[in-house]
Amino acid sequence: MDHLDLMKRLHTPADSKILLWVMDGLGGLPLEPGGKTELEAAVTPNLDRLAQDAVGGLSCPIATGITPGSGPSHLALFGYDPLAWDLGRGVMEVLGIDFPLQDADVAVRGNFCTVDDAGLISDRRAGRISTDKSTELCRLLQEIRVPGVEAFVLPVREHRFALVFRGASLDPRIADTDPQVVGKAPLPVRALADEAAATAALVTAWLEQAYQILAPHHPANSLLLRGFSRDPGLPTMSDVYGLKAAAIASYPMYRGLAKLVGMDVLSTGPTFADEVSTLEEHWSEYDFFYLHLKYTDSRGEDGDFGAKAKVIEEADAMLPRLLALKPDVLIITGDHSSPARLKAHSWHPVPTLLYSAVCGVDGVSVFSERACTTGALGVLPAVDIMPLAMANAGRLAKFGA
Amino acid sequence: MDHLDLMKRLHTPADSKILLWVMDGLGGLPLEPGGKTELEAAVTPNLDRLAQDAVGGLSCPIATGITPGSGPSHLALFGYDPLAWDLGRGVMEVLGIDFPLQDADVAVRGNFCTVDDAGLISDRRAGRISTDKSTELCRLLQEIRVPGVEAFVLPVREHRFALVFRGASLDPRIADTDPQVVGKAPLPVRALADEAAATAALVTAWLEQAYQILAPHHPANSLLLRGFSRDPGLPTMSDVYGLKAAAIASYPMYRGLAKLVGMDVLSTGPTFADEVSTLEEHWSEYDFFYLHLKYTDSRGEDGDFGAKAKVIEEADAMLPRLLALKPDVLIITGDHSSPARLKAHSWHPVPTLLYSAVCGVDGVSVFSERACTTGALGVLPAVDIMPLAMANAGRLAKFGA
Repeated sequence: MDHLDLMKRLHTPADSKILLWVMDGLGGLPLEPGGKTELEAAVTPNLDRLAQDAVGGLSCPIATGITPGSGPSHLALFGYDPLAWDLGRGVMEVLGIDFPLQDADVAVRGNFCTVDDAGLISDRRAGRISTDKSTELCRLLQEIRVPGVEAFVLPVREHRFALVFRGASLDPRIADTDPQVVGKAPLPVRALADEAAATAALVTAWLEQAYQILAPHHPANSLLLRGFSRDPGLPTMSDVYGLKAAAIASYPMYRGLAKLVGMDVLSTGPTFADEVSTLEEHWSEYDFFYLHLKYTDSRGEDGDFGAKAKVIEEADAMLPRLLALKPDVLIITGDHSSPARLKAHSWHPVPTLLYSAVCGVDGVSVFSERACTTGALGVLPAVDIMPLAMANAGRLAKFGA
Repeated sequence: MDHLDLMKRLHTPADSKILLWVMDGLGGLPLEPGGKTELEAAVTPNLDRLAQDAVGGLSCPIATGITPGSGPSHLALFGYDPLAWDLGRGVMEVLGIDFPLQDADVAVRGNFCTVDDAGLISDRRAGRISTDKSTELCRLLQEIRVPGVEAFVLPVREHRFALVFRGASLDPRIADTDPQVVGKAPLPVRALADEAAATAALVTAWLEQAYQILAPHHPANSLLLRGFSRDPGLPTMSDVYGLKAAAIASYPMYRGLAKLVGMDVLSTGPTFADEVSTLEEHWSEYDFFYLHLKYTDSRGEDGDFGAKAKVIEEADAMLPRLLALKPDVLIITGDHSSPARLKAHSWHPVPTLLYSAVCGVDGVSVFSERACTTGALGVLPAVDIMPLAMANAGRLAKFGA
């Protein structure tokens, strides 16, 4: 019996509200040995005060030592085993641009690239052409017609675009055409299963026209495809937890991830203050809210330690507004760490607070990586956070007699 | 390879004794944020002294956030994965009344209930009739004769009774007749597998007579059945660990659980002092003792914080007698938490001490929820306690060369 089975079996109605606040890439590192992390350097009186009444711990997104992408790390926070549910690169790319992906669509990520006269790749990113140029090329490719399939060519950013095939009985088990190195030609389309042969033929027909259209557009005179994939068909939060769930996130990818697990996605503005206003407006309507703060991750990826600490301080200042809503269960965590020191996502477990009237006791009295190592939650798998939230919300029946 | 396989493969004889002391429902909560738990409020000089030489931690009975019943939580303490071994409600009910259940018996829990003139349930508990009345009705139902099966009708308490069917080739895959709501009729008996059809027919025949007998006995004019089940056939502690194991528990259900894993159940008196005397008398005869203290759970379920703390203080006073026996390994833990704050079992991990001459080191110097969060055992699954006990007892060979 896995997590989802247990939750499906044990969830029970209650008049309680859970707020899951994800500060993206929250966890950090000191710039020098013995120094403070971003969270430790930030002045966070409200979070520290909450830490005294909450229990703390460190959330491990995927598995020890594993650095996650945003897709799997969010699935884990929603309680879905990220090693069991595969989010393909194509699906993730399409989620990031708010495209209304349908269940049977096959999505794939595209890169414009440069090929030489011999047809060999000389630049896998086509000199990082501008988004404007890329958008223009996507418009040309959108004119391609292949009987039996509809293709949507969606600009993303610079040389990146997404491609969605819609048709009867498409199968995503298609190998990448991107050889991942320069000096080779783009690979022919190859089915990875017999059932995908027809889809491979349709993609090949589409590509033949695409190569012709792009030929005069040096440096973007060809393209590469990676990560053919489909909506994995996750059970909804309603099925699993019996929760009426809403997502508040200003970035499209996180809205897309929430949609995959059946959350209602609420319209909101671009700032975190906008998101909190949205939360306040809709507080009475849902049992569960996923509230996403993007900028901790952005500043971490920028490598800007001070700016990331400042985002955390701004977040701290918003906490009283969240507490004023009186959530029965409040979880504050990140989907992964993004230390400015590394300018990237990392594997470090993420400082986490869980607050409820019955959350238990520990000695954690400030919110930081160091303090959370001594918390009652220990180092806990991120997938355990939702079961714990459900228990604290009085929404789980007893297991066995 | 799971836990049991590892233990079966690695256990090795030694002249050492393990004492597993389970304070039922030990873990607790403060009544107010920042307050003390029951264990923290109790004055426990002997336990605190032991904590200095022991290692501490928090035992997680089933999985994070899951509140266990006594059956699965005890299986876990004995080292059996409670998600893999299902103890049905019928089996648990029968264990609670010391009935000598045989391997092929099918047990089920019964409730007397009230039905109206239309046959619809108006009270699922028959007004909680007295145990005396219930015993009288069980005696009437015991007169039912169904060819091919013997039925034992066993009073439990108030409206609850247990029913055991004994016969050739019985199959427990039978759905509950209890619809779990009032306003519906008791459900017909339904086999959940083809192989259970004959058993379903026997149960139906028994029920037809039972309904007739009960009809004039308003409010207990009908009955409901839940949790058809059978002894799950657990490997014995002797098979798994090579231990000669004994149980000392004054409450029947815990004696029954010990029997399921092949322990000898020792006769004892009703108080914990009686249990300790029994332990002293039999100390030389066994390798492993399971010693059960019930009242921590009882007072927790009563919601009586002070009384639960007092039970813990009384338990503390008994510790010197246990230590005088010089167990090579002493584990002090609970099967789950039962905070007075919640008046019920809960999901909170349970403070745990493991003492041996080679148990390792940590900074835990008092026995409490808070102190144990920083212990060397961390937050550990309850099923890991027995392997750890075996190791500390010098009873496990090396894994691999």
